[in-house]
Amino acid sequence: MRDIAIFSGSAHVELAEEICQYLSVPLLPSRTSRFANDCLEVQLQANCRERDVYLIQPLVPPVQENLVELLLLLDAARGASAARTTVVMPHYAYARSDKKDAPRISIGGRLVADLLTTAGAGRVLTMTLHSPQVHGFFSVPVDHLHALRELAAHFQPLDLANTVVVSPDLGNAKAATAFARILGVPVAAGAKQRFSDDQVVITDIIGDVSGRDVIVLDDEIAKGSTVFELLERLRERGAGSIRVACTHGLFSSNALDRLQEQADVLEVVCTNTVPIGKEKRVPKLEVLSIAPALAEAIRRIHNGESVSSLFH
Amino acid sequence: MRDIAIFSGSAHVELAEEICQYLSVPLLPSRTSRFANDCLEVQLQANCRERDVYLIQPLVPPVQENLVELLLLLDAARGASAARTTVVMPHYAYARSDKKDAPRISIGGRLVADLLTTAGAGRVLTMTLHSPQVHGFFSVPVDHLHALRELAAHFQPLDLANTVVVSPDLGNAKAATAFARILGVPVAAGAKQRFSDDQVVITDIIGDVSGRDVIVLDDEIAKGSTVFELLERLRERGAGSIRVACTHGLFSSNALDRLQEQADVLEVVCTNTVPIGKEKRVPKLEVLSIAPALAEAIRRIHNGESVSSLFH
Amino acid sequence: MRDIAIFSGSAHVELAEEICQYLSVPLLPSRTSRFANDCLEVQLQANCRERDVYLIQPLVPPVQENLVELLLLLDAARGASAARTTVVMPHYAYARSDKKDAPRISIGGRLVADLLTTAGAGRVLTMTLHSPQVHGFFSVPVDHLHALRELAAHFQPLDLANTVVVSPDLGNAKAATAFARILGVPVAAGAKQRFSDDQVVITDIIGDVSGRDVIVLDDEIAKGSTVFELLERLRERGAGSIRVACTHGLFSSNALDRLQEQADVLEVVCTNTVPIGKEKRVPKLEVLSIAPALAEAIRRIHNGESVSSLFH
Amino acid sequence: MRDIAIFSGSAHVELAEEICQYLSVPLLPSRTSRFANDCLEVQLQANCRERDVYLIQPLVPPVQENLVELLLLLDAARGASAARTTVVMPHYAYARSDKKDAPRISIGGRLVADLLTTAGAGRVLTMTLHSPQVHGFFSVPVDHLHALRELAAHFQPLDLANTVVVSPDLGNAKAATAFARILGVPVAAGAKQRFSDDQVVITDIIGDVSGRDVIVLDDEIAKGSTVFELLERLRERGAGSIRVACTHGLFSSNALDRLQEQADVLEVVCTNTVPIGKEKRVPKLEVLSIAPALAEAIRRIHNGESVSSLFH
Amino acid sequence: MRDIAIFSGSAHVELAEEICQYLSVPLLPSRTSRFANDCLEVQLQANCRERDVYLIQPLVPPVQENLVELLLLLDAARGASAARTTVVMPHYAYARSDKKDAPRISIGGRLVADLLTTAGAGRVLTMTLHSPQVHGFFSVPVDHLHALRELAAHFQPLDLANTVVVSPDLGNAKAATAFARILGVPVAAGAKQRFSDDQVVITDIIGDVSGRDVIVLDDEIAKGSTVFELLERLRERGAGSIRVACTHGLFSSNALDRLQEQADVLEVVCTNTVPIGKEKRVPKLEVLSIAPALAEAIRRIHNGESVSSLFH
Amino acid sequence: MRDIAIFSGSAHVELAEEICQYLSVPLLPSRTSRFANDCLEVQLQANCRERDVYLIQPLVPPVQENLVELLLLLDAARGASAARTTVVMPHYAYARSDKKDAPRISIGGRLVADLLTTAGAGRVLTMTLHSPQVHGFFSVPVDHLHALRELAAHFQPLDLANTVVVSPDLGNAKAATAFARILGVPVAAGAKQRFSDDQVVITDIIGDVSGRDVIVLDDEIAKGSTVFELLERLRERGAGSIRVACTHGLFSSNALDRLQEQADVLEVVCTNTVPIGKEKRVPKLEVLSIAPALAEAIRRIHNGESVSSLFH
Repeated sequence: MRDIAIFSGSAHVELAEEICQYLSVPLLPSRTSRFANDCLEVQLQANCRERDVYLIQPLVPPVQENLVELLLLLDAARGASAARTTVVMPHYAYARSDKKDAPRISIGGRLVADLLTTAGAGRVLTMTLHSPQVHGFFSVPVDHLHALRELAAHFQPLDLANTVVVSPDLGNAKAATAFARILGVPVAAGAKQRFSDDQVVITDIIGDVSGRDVIVLDDEIAKGSTVFELLERLRERGAGSIRVACTHGLFSSNALDRLQEQADVLEVVCTNTVPIGKEKRVPKLEVLSIAPALAEAIRRIHNGESVSSLFH
Repeated sequence: MRDIAIFSGSAHVELAEEICQYLSVPLLPSRTSRFANDCLEVQLQANCRERDVYLIQPLVPPVQENLVELLLLLDAARGASAARTTVVMPHYAYARSDKKDAPRISIGGRLVADLLTTAGAGRVLTMTLHSPQVHGFFSVPVDHLHALRELAAHFQPLDLANTVVVSPDLGNAKAATAFARILGVPVAAGAKQRFSDDQVVITDIIGDVSGRDVIVLDDEIAKGSTVFELLERLRERGAGSIRVACTHGLFSSNALDRLQEQADVLEVVCTNTVPIGKEKRVPKLEVLSIAPALAEAIRRIHNGESVSSLFH
Repeated sequence: MRDIAIFSGSAHVELAEEICQYLSVPLLPSRTSRFANDCLEVQLQANCRERDVYLIQPLVPPVQENLVELLLLLDAARGASAARTTVVMPHYAYARSDKKDAPRISIGGRLVADLLTTAGAGRVLTMTLHSPQVHGFFSVPVDHLHALRELAAHFQPLDLANTVVVSPDLGNAKAATAFARILGVPVAAGAKQRFSDDQVVITDIIGDVSGRDVIVLDDEIAKGSTVFELLERLRERGAGSIRVACTHGLFSSNALDRLQEQADVLEVVCTNTVPIGKEKRVPKLEVLSIAPALAEAIRRIHNGESVSSLFH
Repeated sequence: MRDIAIFSGSAHVELAEEICQYLSVPLLPSRTSRFANDCLEVQLQANCRERDVYLIQPLVPPVQENLVELLLLLDAARGASAARTTVVMPHYAYARSDKKDAPRISIGGRLVADLLTTAGAGRVLTMTLHSPQVHGFFSVPVDHLHALRELAAHFQPLDLANTVVVSPDLGNAKAATAFARILGVPVAAGAKQRFSDDQVVITDIIGDVSGRDVIVLDDEIAKGSTVFELLERLRERGAGSIRVACTHGLFSSNALDRLQEQADVLEVVCTNTVPIGKEKRVPKLEVLSIAPALAEAIRRIHNGESVSSLFH
Repeated sequence: MRDIAIFSGSAHVELAEEICQYLSVPLLPSRTSRFANDCLEVQLQANCRERDVYLIQPLVPPVQENLVELLLLLDAARGASAARTTVVMPHYAYARSDKKDAPRISIGGRLVADLLTTAGAGRVLTMTLHSPQVHGFFSVPVDHLHALRELAAHFQPLDLANTVVVSPDLGNAKAATAFARILGVPVAAGAKQRFSDDQVVITDIIGDVSGRDVIVLDDEIAKGSTVFELLERLRERGAGSIRVACTHGLFSSNALDRLQEQADVLEVVCTNTVPIGKEKRVPKLEVLSIAPALAEAIRRIHNGESVSSLFH
Repeated sequence: MRDIAIFSGSAHVELAEEICQYLSVPLLPSRTSRFANDCLEVQLQANCRERDVYLIQPLVPPVQENLVELLLLLDAARGASAARTTVVMPHYAYARSDKKDAPRISIGGRLVADLLTTAGAGRVLTMTLHSPQVHGFFSVPVDHLHALRELAAHFQPLDLANTVVVSPDLGNAKAATAFARILGVPVAAGAKQRFSDDQVVITDIIGDVSGRDVIVLDDEIAKGSTVFELLERLRERGAGSIRVACTHGLFSSNALDRLQEQADVLEVVCTNTVPIGKEKRVPKLEVLSIAPALAEAIRRIHNGESVSSLFH
């Protein structure tokens, strides 16, 4: 079997180190230089000839810098005769650009998938894509994980007798249902209604939340507008305590500060697919690590074992 | 400007002829032969050298036969030195295979997009894709039309004072909202709730339908299960008369007969993206032609005029 | 060495099972579903990550269904991270579409080769292509077997002292000569003369057949017109008993029934590259299995041993 | 309409000049330099930006030099922003390498087709390919002409009352039949029989030649072995005068001198797809020009008119 | 002839506007949005169907942002059915990453060329690439301009009787020689000597500079280290007044302030391939516009006229 | 680990045999045939299925013949199911065609790199490319060796106390400096000045050569013009004995005879990247073998060990 060689770009070194610890392999050194003209150059500083190479780089802000660095890392690995290169991209920000809902716009989700292939990606390992169709944008194999098990494990020690899982969106309620089943609790969902082309509000909640403790589950939280709107609906319907969970904790603007301020929100739980700086870490925030899951997926990919049997 | 040359496969010759009538150009002859070993061979029977070629073939049953015939037509056009070949595919059946929701399954929507490109498609003109992300499966330009204007024109002569448009699915409510706006009426939507991985039912209707005349709008109707479930919910909530509208009238099994039998369903309206045999044409069925829309799109594509300005 | 993983499409499951028996490996399960809109979806139901995958699917009627199923199987294997995928296609029906003998026709033999590559085929194992040039239509490696050894083994127990092998066609007499050499008998061939563009008849037989027992050898028999014409010429020249042999027994129309009726035709021998339903199996028909040959070729491909040394 | 721009490589400048004369356009200048290290460099010495470029270069000896020069010309045209580049290659020598009849050999006919595409060929105009399947080796459109009309026009002034056209090979008798029909005479053909893998002789002639004047028609004559063998068979069967015609007059070794020496061979007729040096031009040799046919095909390609309507 | 459509990315809108003024065509509107997750989306806000599209975007800081925006613009143009898209990239920063002078590094110059092609670039118009070999990194046609004419025109009004052009580097002295010839003055060059792998200094000046007015010519100035070293050598050799000229004025760090401080440096001349903010514009700086040259090149590309005849 | 399989084309069989000796593996047999029409066909005469194949063929005169033979060898290896094919091309003649310094010329260095990829090259092992940017012309991994160690070892036994290494060209002085450092001696360099576009002369020598023994180091010597000019400058500056060293000894025209005639030239040292016929081997010529270096690189590539750690 070929040797494994794991490198990290600049986007999330901490996650890369944690993954390598779980795999008991070293995170191999690489160097990213910036020239006077602002161009980047990367160097893989360990042999990767005929190796099974993994490049760990979630597409998180600064997205363009991280994307181009990732493309250069792929180019370097190809030039260095890597046997196969897998992009480990637990957050794929461009997945949100997945359709052409206005004339003559770019479809970044497809374009970036093609760019990764051009640069030498032979496989992609990612997590909780914004829409499942984005899988089909890639012409190389994609292993698509989710973090439901990790999120559920966090809540299982609680007394869940009176708990309901609430998805902010009926469209994505499939994940919430699977999550609720793991916890053995019922599920409800917000109903978004479109009043005009650009005005979408949660007008209703399907399922019973009155007097119940709520776990809100979403795929990602950026500015948090949807969550805050959902909180209002939940309060109107007499929900009890509220916990907020998501896979991708982007938390742009002051989303975390605002969540911290909500008295009835007991905690905000996310995973570490996106790095969260210390300055943003409010007391109510709990960050779960998906490094074990990614490490196990890498181990199985490397060994040719089934990944789906674990995660589906 | 290059000359135009329009050919049709076997899937829907009637539609092709109607499009050509609107464009005042002849539908050029082609021949599809079947050999003793069941292989197909096609011949374009008019010069298409340096022409702007359009091949009209919706992917409708028998889908595999029509798909391979289309691929052969593309190959023939390329070999015959067509300047550019546009696939006019008003119904793209494989768009429903758009994600990998089980391990090791095919993603037919992406695969067929790639096959069309391999065979020589330079552009695709299609209508109301099952999900908007499927647009991103194609590596060639796609002009993606919808039939809302045609469907709305059918209902505008009615007295719509007490009418509401109902989408069976909140996920696809955007089209319903646009449709309702053209008609100047409110919109409502069914809320599908998932009780287990394979059990999805409409549990609720968001928006007021009580005592109102309803126009149900869906993108396509095949077996009709969703529509029949929605009808029950509408009745429970005291809806008035019901009209059912969709773009793609696949009407498999005995969907049309069953719709005909519903006393409160006044009519079933679809377009002719899918051919509907005479034996299936029940009295309540009204088939609208999207040939004028496709013809106008072809005219604009051929002349380099904006298509989006018409249809968005 | 990578593990082997063998799957079968719907075209010829019996052959696939027989091949797996010879290899002492299980035929892995797969599932082909047909949706209400007539689209197919396939699922490989066993892990094939990093496996050396073989998909067994001769292109036999219904050709278009089997072709699209094969393309979907390839797509599924690629998406499931197969290390390499070999199409085992003992009969390649589209090989007959190998030239452009009329203006603006498709060249299906080349197109389908490209489609297979697009869908993910990394190698093709096939048998007795209609013309040897079709090998060059593929951009991936092709292992091209023949069945002369199997066919010869069937006849060797007979008293061949007075036997001659007859090819219906001088163009393809090379195989007949090799076949005759294995049997240690002389060879003769029909001479097709073209009287007009679409009228080709066998006017002559080169070589001595008078009073001899004849084994007619052809690559495939579909409607059988050529064979029946050859029979007349053989009778005119006073041939003795006649046996008919071919690799691909397509036997369309009522070819088998008609052959059964010929008093001087003692038997009809073909291989199982094409499945032959029980209802077609006349008493004179003998079907030889090429499963051992395909199994041995797969074994050698998998182990990196020479295939040509066995079959050439 | 785009302007036309015609350049020639070194292989056959005389033919290029003649084609340009028929088209009344100048043969544009180009330069091929050879460096001290034996590498070639080409320069197109006239603007070809957005032009419809034609590069005239039959693949004739020295084949490797002419092939690489052609690839460099294609590269130069692409780099110079040609709108479209057509390779005018009236003789495609590598077409003879069209199958894999021994283990691990190259299939030059397919490889060179791919090399031309890589270098920028957008279309190929060729004549009388060795086998019609070679057409399918190209992934770009091919216009495949023949020279039957030109050859027939040469013989039509003769008294053909007692004439028969003879093909040396039944495999290629289709062209001979078409040729005979133009001349209004019957056709016959040699029957090649294979006695062992490498011993093929003409054992028979199908059709009546006794006492008749013969026109032998072949696609190409190189060493001439087949023709000389056919002459013997014709003499044995009492044929009268003999004329030999072919499209591609390669005439390697001393084929022309030997033909000149045959008393009953009245003339040897070929076209100028291959340049024939003055030192080889024996008195019986007649070289017909296919420049008018190529010029007319170029004119039609350039104008988007049907080529097949002329030549099929 | 197709219509022209010119858009600009964010990198250098001023240059784009100036080019459009020279061409008397409007700069068409586009929009670049940044989402909460830092992803970009672009929209071309004017019809570009079947247009000859030009996207003006020099790769200048912030390079990664500008590069990804350019790739998205290309994707949008392709999706919007542009007939052909030309990238107008007067400064190509990644051209400096043109070789692999350390193990396992990226070659950004080649990678970015491939990325542009993947995103849909059909042609590139650029200026003064860092090394001429970078031209060969592109698989699409490149029109490679220089600014010698513009720079020379600036100096021609001066009394040049006692002037010498000095190239800091012998390797790039070819441009300096051409420049000196336009001005009718002699040329000299610095000789860089390498004392160790990473220590390169200008040790000598080839040619006479003593007592002469000097025009230093370089392709680009970033931090200016080479120029400052050259100034020292010039002073040691008794040069008179000094003027510094370059095509690409990157002027990172405080290069311009330092040049302003040099008493014997009379002026610093560059072109506007790179935007120079007002805060950097020191009194000695003179920025020449290459908009007329780019506009003329675009006009000729659009009209199919020779570009080389103008600029070589 | 896969087995290794090494074949040689016709260009330099002696080198291939020497490499195989160092690796203790057999040079596997191949056959190159030339047909009557001047086309080549190659056959690999040993199994290479799933092997790690190396094809040894420097691009040396006759370049076109050797290039096409190499492309055919690649095609044969691909068709024979080689697992990976590495082109071992110690001299890449077309690397000199690396830029477009005149309008509408070919860039052979890039084109040939693409042709090799088209034919199936998966990796290239080469030596001392004319310019380092040529590395970037390849889309497959390149291992780029140099011969400085071998050349230095030749001179190390000499008394080098009074020796200086001289590069004819400042542009390429980096290699000379590395070479001098291995020998522990100083370095100097000729300064080429360009007086007009096509007149380049060495006008100066940077560094002290007076009274010193000189080792001239260049990458290749063809006609030798540069070296002879350098010799004159060295003599003018009072250099002592002179030795000339280069990697690629092309020695076209009578370069070797002229070097032999120079009294102060003590020896001419090159490597065997280019075969040198016995008739050219003058007494002063010393040819060093780089077979050990190439063999070690092949061993490391095959074993997945770092190549750069050895050669950089």
